[in-house]
Amino acid sequence: TSSPRNSVRFQQLLLSSGSNYTVASYLRSLTLHPHLAGTEPSSETVRYVESHFRDLGLETHSIQYDALLSYPKSTSLSVLLSNGTVVYIPLSENVEGVVQPYHAYSPSGTAYGPAVFVNYGRDEDYRELAKMGVTVVGCIAVARKGEFPRGVVVAKAEANGAKGVLLYVEGDGFRQGFERGTVMRGIGDPLSPGWAAVDGAERLNLNDSEVLKRFPKIPSMPLSAESAEIILSSLDTASVPPEWRDKKANLGSAAVGPGGPIFINFTYQGERKVATIRNVIAVIKGLEEPDRFVLMGNHRDAWSFGAVDPNSGTAALLDIARRFSLLRRLGWNPRRTILLCSWDAEEFGMIGSTEWVEQNIVNLGTKAVAYLNVDCAVQGPGFFAGATPQLDDLLHDVTAQVQDPDVKGATVHDTWTAENGIGNIERLGAVNSDFAAFVQHAGVPSVDVYYGRDFPVYHTAFDTYDWMANYGDPLFHRHVTVGSIWGLLALRLSDDLILPFSYISYANQLQAYKDTLNHLLDGSVSLHSLSSSIEELKFAAQEIENEAKRLREQEASSDVALFQKRALNDRLMLAERGFLDVDGLRGHPWFKHLVYGPLSNYESALVYFPGIADAVSESKVINKRELEELIQHEIWRVARAIRRAAAALKGELS
Amino acid sequence: TSSPRNSVRFQQLLLSSGSNYTVASYLRSLTLHPHLAGTEPSSETVRYVESHFRDLGLETHSIQYDALLSYPKSTSLSVLLSNGTVVYIPLSENVEGVVQPYHAYSPSGTAYGPAVFVNYGRDEDYRELAKMGVTVVGCIAVARKGEFPRGVVVAKAEANGAKGVLLYVEGDGFRQGFERGTVMRGIGDPLSPGWAAVDGAERLNLNDSEVLKRFPKIPSMPLSAESAEIILSSLDTASVPPEWRDKKANLGSAAVGPGGPIFINFTYQGERKVATIRNVIAVIKGLEEPDRFVLMGNHRDAWSFGAVDPNSGTAALLDIARRFSLLRRLGWNPRRTILLCSWDAEEFGMIGSTEWVEQNIVNLGTKAVAYLNVDCAVQGPGFFAGATPQLDDLLHDVTAQVQDPDVKGATVHDTWTAENGIGNIERLGAVNSDFAAFVQHAGVPSVDVYYGRDFPVYHTAFDTYDWMANYGDPLFHRHVTVGSIWGLLALRLSDDLILPFSYISYANQLQAYKDTLNHLLDGSVSLHSLSSSIEELKFAAQEIENEAKRLREQEASSDVALFQKRALNDRLMLAERGFLDVDGLRGHPWFKHLVYGPLSNYESALVYFPGIADAVSESKVINKRELEELIQHEIWRVARAIRRAAAALKGELS
Ligand SMILES: [Ca+2]
Ligand SMILES: [Ca+2]
Ligand SMILES: [Zn+2]
Ligand SMILES: [Zn+2]
Ligand SMILES: [Zn+2]
Ligand SMILES: [Zn+2]
Repeated sequence: TSSPRNSVRFQQLLLSSGSNYTVASYLRSLTLHPHLAGTEPSSETVRYVESHFRDLGLETHSIQYDALLSYPKSTSLSVLLSNGTVVYIPLSENVEGVVQPYHAYSPSGTAYGPAVFVNYGRDEDYRELAKMGVTVVGCIAVARKGEFPRGVVVAKAEANGAKGVLLYVEGDGFRQGFERGTVMRGIGDPLSPGWAAVDGAERLNLNDSEVLKRFPKIPSMPLSAESAEIILSSLDTASVPPEWRDKKANLGSAAVGPGGPIFINFTYQGERKVATIRNVIAVIKGLEEPDRFVLMGNHRDAWSFGAVDPNSGTAALLDIARRFSLLRRLGWNPRRTILLCSWDAEEFGMIGSTEWVEQNIVNLGTKAVAYLNVDCAVQGPGFFAGATPQLDDLLHDVTAQVQDPDVKGATVHDTWTAENGIGNIERLGAVNSDFAAFVQHAGVPSVDVYYGRDFPVYHTAFDTYDWMANYGDPLFHRHVTVGSIWGLLALRLSDDLILPFSYISYANQLQAYKDTLNHLLDGSVSLHSLSSSIEELKFAAQEIENEAKRLREQEASSDVALFQKRALNDRLMLAERGFLDVDGLRGHPWFKHLVYGPLSNYESALVYFPGIADAVSESKVINKRELEELIQHEIWRVARAIRRAAAALKGELS
Repeated sequence: TSSPRNSVRFQQLLLSSGSNYTVASYLRSLTLHPHLAGTEPSSETVRYVESHFRDLGLETHSIQYDALLSYPKSTSLSVLLSNGTVVYIPLSENVEGVVQPYHAYSPSGTAYGPAVFVNYGRDEDYRELAKMGVTVVGCIAVARKGEFPRGVVVAKAEANGAKGVLLYVEGDGFRQGFERGTVMRGIGDPLSPGWAAVDGAERLNLNDSEVLKRFPKIPSMPLSAESAEIILSSLDTASVPPEWRDKKANLGSAAVGPGGPIFINFTYQGERKVATIRNVIAVIKGLEEPDRFVLMGNHRDAWSFGAVDPNSGTAALLDIARRFSLLRRLGWNPRRTILLCSWDAEEFGMIGSTEWVEQNIVNLGTKAVAYLNVDCAVQGPGFFAGATPQLDDLLHDVTAQVQDPDVKGATVHDTWTAENGIGNIERLGAVNSDFAAFVQHAGVPSVDVYYGRDFPVYHTAFDTYDWMANYGDPLFHRHVTVGSIWGLLALRLSDDLILPFSYISYANQLQAYKDTLNHLLDGSVSLHSLSSSIEELKFAAQEIENEAKRLREQEASSDVALFQKRALNDRLMLAERGFLDVDGLRGHPWFKHLVYGPLSNYESALVYFPGIADAVSESKVINKRELEELIQHEIWRVARAIRRAAAALKGELS
């Protein structure tokens, strides 16, 4: 058994064994060629990762699924200006071997119609246009990327009558880059919702309503900022709300001719087809509690070269494998089993990780301690983290043990908390990386860490090793830092005798949510059930905290004492599952978590309690009383979920 | 820790500590007054059971819910014969203090129309009538009780246009007795489907569609055989299919007048109202593994005096408490926690047990080893048992240790298996006692044991202590026997170091189901997924059997060895949960178990795979191809459920 003292030793060994040039070499190898999911170059990365793990003596295997992916065949885009000129818009980044810019799962089609700038494509933007008497029906919507997912932009445009969507990213970005990405709604293989797309599995028909509702019905494409400008500068600004005419958009600055609409003609031809994808998993079996799992995951597939997204994370994963392997040679065995997971097809909709979660739902539900995600390990400077709240304290502990890669003499924790003294931890309700299935479907406590954000070459052909070496992480120290944080999180979760979870943090977070919600609602619905369930959780959290304290101090190792710790750890581990509801979120029941999950209609600013958020902003009208009942019902559901979590913490029967 | 030798000693102590006159005295006390759920006399039984447990030094508590129950106010029934005479049918058993005969949750109303005998009220019976040109529309259906639940008889009559239903029981029964019972569909409090009806809980509106669909829309009432005969003998047999005119039914034997229909006029006035119900629970905390639960349950509420149903079981429960308390005084502590549960409101729809299961779903799912049900401990002679298949072997073991109460020198196992050499174990897909929520909603392995069946005073005012003392169990030896079997099952499950489950039995049972299904289907759908999933389960079952054998022989008590046993036990415990599907059964999604559960349309003879059975007998037509797809989809779902169970047995991640 690992005594506390040994743990500290192995932690220090982990922290001191980082190597920036090693991790840089991994990144260079991984990013030599583009490696889109389901294509031949992707197999090369599978082999690379597999042999890396195996060469380190780690028990390794790969697991494959046959999932519906999507590839482009041809695209074209032209604009008919108001003076009669036809301009062809460039749609390529002219980088060989990289898949042309497209939106995965966009339907094929030709869309022709007047161009309308729809700002970010939010409901409020369409309301603005309507106020100005500008119709979107039959038009091509030109939108700039904002806060919500691509697929939602297209869905809203479609709902407002548009025939097609062109989506661009503005800002100081790389103006020639086209941001590829998925427009599919929901995650996982669309033909096997709720089960794994293994060989011989059931598959829904392509025209099954459950499948069709995953995809938009109008075609869409990404535009580079440069290409977008050609269109935007030609717009007749009489049809653009004044507040949208900010400098960034450059709207109408080059409008020529007699004014009036410009017409867009774009064609997208693509195909959705079933392709084989592969996850690679290395397992470091736990010694005392091999049936408890700590998972570390990163996706491996990329739109192009993937230097930042995701292979900076893959390089860190390979580096962690190297460091763990070193620890093992020096006598270390984790208490609980650690899995290093390399996911495929994340870019299409978290497919590799989601299929694996669906396949393993029973054992994940009963035995998974935590999931630690790293997608883009490094995009630039600054430490960022997301987590389910019981892991907040652990994040603080761990970052306080790791040296800051950019500021001498400081820890990551120092710089991280410098701005506001707290260290902001995001929450995991978004559906934008592989933690989504773990949190929102399986109820596994999770963490997501990364350096930097909003890097300009995101999903373009310019996400290359050179970009990383020049801008993202010139000396690769940040890569090493992310690896250290990641590895230390895993070590604490696998080796601490009592799991390092704090449900007091969770209860406090829920309390804050409730207080905000209170301000948002007008008093016509009652938050009493929510308040009392949070009190129950607080109480249970304090009780188990006290019990954990007593057990930590207890040296006894009798059967009874050992099982007491195991029983307490089970209660800590299983509490998050209480937040799951078998019926899931209204409208998208595959998402089971009632605290963290995606919105349906993205009208709400709330990033928690998605069921309540969607009910509050429900626009498909129903009368006032029915709306109140709906909101009230969703509040009840969340209250019961919190009560279930409290019951799991208590671990007793009523 | 309890060594094997001590276990044998305590088992022998349990078996030798039975006392027939003690258990008889419990029954006499329990059945002094009628004790219908939600009424004042019911509180008396709560106090009786609570103090019995407490006086034995057991940690006892009661838990209450506010559930929608149903009580009668007035009933009347008259028949207009074809000669113009009006006959008033007696509807009372003339026993003071017993609630008048009625169907719980029948709507109030007056129904007037021609009487039509509908045999058992199955779809095939209505088809027979249609063939004869006999319409049921606007008629009062008179039906004899057959194989399926009362509520289904009423639903089918309603679907065929009847305005009311009179249901009688024929046979050698007590001809003055009226069989009360529920006609509600589904189980648990109808206002809180999926959550516990605790104080302050959310309640659906009485007119919510989820609530309305639980109840029939036409009134119904029970008839005694005597009262039924008055009607049946007056029927014009021209409208009765010849095969139905068997001796039992006595149809038309006294028909008078010119022939033609007789008219029935019946009125039922009742009220559905929220009432407080209470479960009583005694807990014997486990020493080494207190967070593993073995549950023993019996309901306490009765339609009248409840001597057979359910208080013969309650007497056995109190006797078990006495015996366990004796064992404790002699130094015994169970390894795992044992709960003795006295449920309320079973007669209305398994309400007390179901609310408790809903309230505790998180901890039952993660920590419940098994649920052992005894409803009517003794109805007469002959041992009967139902179980989920992994408990078959344990049932055989235990019955071989218990003396037969009627045959000297034989064990229960001897007489039980005498008829066919095997010992028939029923399966738990019916919704007729408190194991239903445990198996079909929570996936907890369960057993149901009883002596005798089809006792003639079932649900009548004549289910009294005297009946039991004269007919059911004159010397109360069968009561003692049931207690011994029940107690020994619990002891094995709480004390065996390795849980006594055999999944090889389960796989074999599923194989047999698949073979029968194969004969039923015509080859247009594929059973391949089912076959291969059963093979997977078989393999996993054999592997864990081998592993269990190795661990049993391993004396080591290191941390690692202890956790190995615990881990293996967890896998054995959790496998049944794999058969649950979050989406539940089509049409009644609260029922999650895909192997054992109620049918929707009761057309099928299958008592397993209810989803497949209902799909095969789907009559709401859809074309042939859609029907095949539906059946195929249901087969896939069961195959995946079996795969989940296999995955739980393996306990590893893919
Ligand atoms: Ca899937
Ligand atoms: Ca309920
Ligand atoms: Zn990524
Ligand atoms: Zn990405
Ligand atoms: Zn009963
Ligand atoms: Zn009964």
